[in-house]
Amino acid sequence: MTAMYAVLMAGGSGTRFWPASRQARPKQLLPIGGDLPLLVETSRRLGELIPPERQFVITSQLTVDAVRALLPELPPEHVVGEPEGRDTAPCLGLAGRLVAAVDPDAMVVAMPSDHVITPPELFREHLDAAREALDAHPERLLVFGIEPTHPATGYGYLRQGEKVGEFSGKTLYGLDAFIEKPDLPRAQALLAEGGYSWNAGLFAFRPAALRAAFVSYLPDMVAGLDTIAAAFGSDGFESCLKDVFPTLEKVSIDVGVMEKLDGTLMLPLPVQWNDVGSWTALENLKPSDDDGNVVDGEAVLLNTTSTIVSADGGVVAARGVDGLIIVHTPDATMVCRRDDDQGVKEIVAALRAKDLDVYL
Amino acid sequence: MTAMYAVLMAGGSGTRFWPASRQARPKQLLPIGGDLPLLVETSRRLGELIPPERQFVITSQLTVDAVRALLPELPPEHVVGEPEGRDTAPCLGLAGRLVAAVDPDAMVVAMPSDHVITPPELFREHLDAAREALDAHPERLLVFGIEPTHPATGYGYLRQGEKVGEFSGKTLYGLDAFIEKPDLPRAQALLAEGGYSWNAGLFAFRPAALRAAFVSYLPDMVAGLDTIAAAFGSDGFESCLKDVFPTLEKVSIDVGVMEKLDGTLMLPLPVQWNDVGSWTALENLKPSDDDGNVVDGEAVLLNTTSTIVSADGGVVAARGVDGLIIVHTPDATMVCRRDDDQGVKEIVAALRAKDLDVYL
Repeated sequence: MTAMYAVLMAGGSGTRFWPASRQARPKQLLPIGGDLPLLVETSRRLGELIPPERQFVITSQLTVDAVRALLPELPPEHVVGEPEGRDTAPCLGLAGRLVAAVDPDAMVVAMPSDHVITPPELFREHLDAAREALDAHPERLLVFGIEPTHPATGYGYLRQGEKVGEFSGKTLYGLDAFIEKPDLPRAQALLAEGGYSWNAGLFAFRPAALRAAFVSYLPDMVAGLDTIAAAFGSDGFESCLKDVFPTLEKVSIDVGVMEKLDGTLMLPLPVQWNDVGSWTALENLKPSDDDGNVVDGEAVLLNTTSTIVSADGGVVAARGVDGLIIVHTPDATMVCRRDDDQGVKEIVAALRAKDLDVYL
Repeated sequence: MTAMYAVLMAGGSGTRFWPASRQARPKQLLPIGGDLPLLVETSRRLGELIPPERQFVITSQLTVDAVRALLPELPPEHVVGEPEGRDTAPCLGLAGRLVAAVDPDAMVVAMPSDHVITPPELFREHLDAAREALDAHPERLLVFGIEPTHPATGYGYLRQGEKVGEFSGKTLYGLDAFIEKPDLPRAQALLAEGGYSWNAGLFAFRPAALRAAFVSYLPDMVAGLDTIAAAFGSDGFESCLKDVFPTLEKVSIDVGVMEKLDGTLMLPLPVQWNDVGSWTALENLKPSDDDGNVVDGEAVLLNTTSTIVSADGGVVAARGVDGLIIVHTPDATMVCRRDDDQGVKEIVAALRAKDLDVYL
């Protein structure tokens, strides 16, 4: 049976979760809405289907040590730190070449490390179906599709094509088109039309197929990725990565490859999915109280309604407020309106502009 | 010339400044609205008129060490810790007896330790005038009156009587009546009528005169206070205080003595006065920005108006909020409406009810 490897993409900085998330402690390292860091949940979700020794993590140089400490069951060399963020195409390209260096005939599942997916059993069933699908179509790439629950403007959409076959009882489709993040009217039209899924950044492929796609659409990146992969496992790997990786084109896998590539497969993934994109995600991860408040941590709320609270290392006390997000950490407190959760990025920018990087 | 002593009453718990104020770090120990703790400002305000060696502090047992550390220039034995709070009559009674134990012919000024008074020179001029007044009327008590700026319901009022004389160019009056905290219509009527001052809890007296007043109106307290004073300076003082002080009646000086006593003097004190009674006091202690925000500490405020921020040991960042009070400390954050600053007491009560005393 084809060996399955997982690559957990953990390079995000998660500025929308400031002040809980920091440069050296991004979102995926935090236990947002749960008991364990999102990265650890993501690793454990793979269960025995893809055990730790067949998992890789690609993260930022800044967090390599923290990731190794959180996932001690992974071989330390499987935690790779990007010298700088170059978007998802170099990251996925590297993922494919690293797995190929270990097992060129493997099947790779590449996934964000900071999403919540339940139930894990159903998720694993679909990974296994993807393996079967790629055993039948080893030259093709596969993308998983999430059923949309609302006309979201923050995700790309996948247009479902013809049925390709059944694998482990799951129906596999061709992918008709990658659609970039739509505006609201377009998102509403897509939902009304039907046959669209959200692109959650979850891919499966054989390393050779991904390399072939890079040869076609990102040819300038291939030699660099091959060089890095050739050094994997040697003493020179770190310095090779540091020299070569920053020279790779900064481009997303969607724009660089997927939107141009034909023959991609699409497997619907009927799970509960949450990309934990901002503080309001907590409302789907934690139960609300009778006043519509959602609390992560210790809080005392008096005459307070529709408010989201996160208290890390302390307590939040509020009285007589409505519709706020209140986040406490030992050295920073953030307060904004619940309907303005994207504004946290502006706060981070303002802190930087005020030379308050010490809090970032 | 009669020696002047000051007794700084520092027993308050300042729950309205939670989470900045705590049981072991009450308001008077905090630099609210300034650079130095209110208690230190109060001590320094006395200047050379009443130097540290003639100052006493009566505080709670819990904060004796902290007070001694903040005021190292005071003789350590001049910092006295009440074993428990018994309101202001036992505290003032003790103040009088302690000074009498050192210098029975002294003049005592007793004052809260957590108010802001400016300018200090003008304040000291009036203390000196009070000394002259009591040299002329050693058997009487004197209360200072603050000119009301609005119909406050949080203070007692003093009704000015007949002019008694001029001392150092300041006009001294008799006191017609102590008026307990009025409701708003009554406060408005008092202001319209004129001739009323706020009672700021600032008194001056000779120890013998205060003792005589206690003999008349709080006779059961006299023996206890004499016993404590007799032990002052001896090894047995602490244990004597611990045994006797809690047996004294819990009553305010206003109710226990001043409202019943005739012949009290009233000296108007035309200073800038702020009792730093709640977070909104910051608006009079710190300049506002163009959006009406008042910030004590480090803050980043975006599209935020009329908000009071205190950040201790960190930063507060807010966006898109109006009319709030936001207070950050390393282990607790408090958010409430600016027009609900008295609600902080309710928050403290709720924390206690939830067994979160660790934050109090």
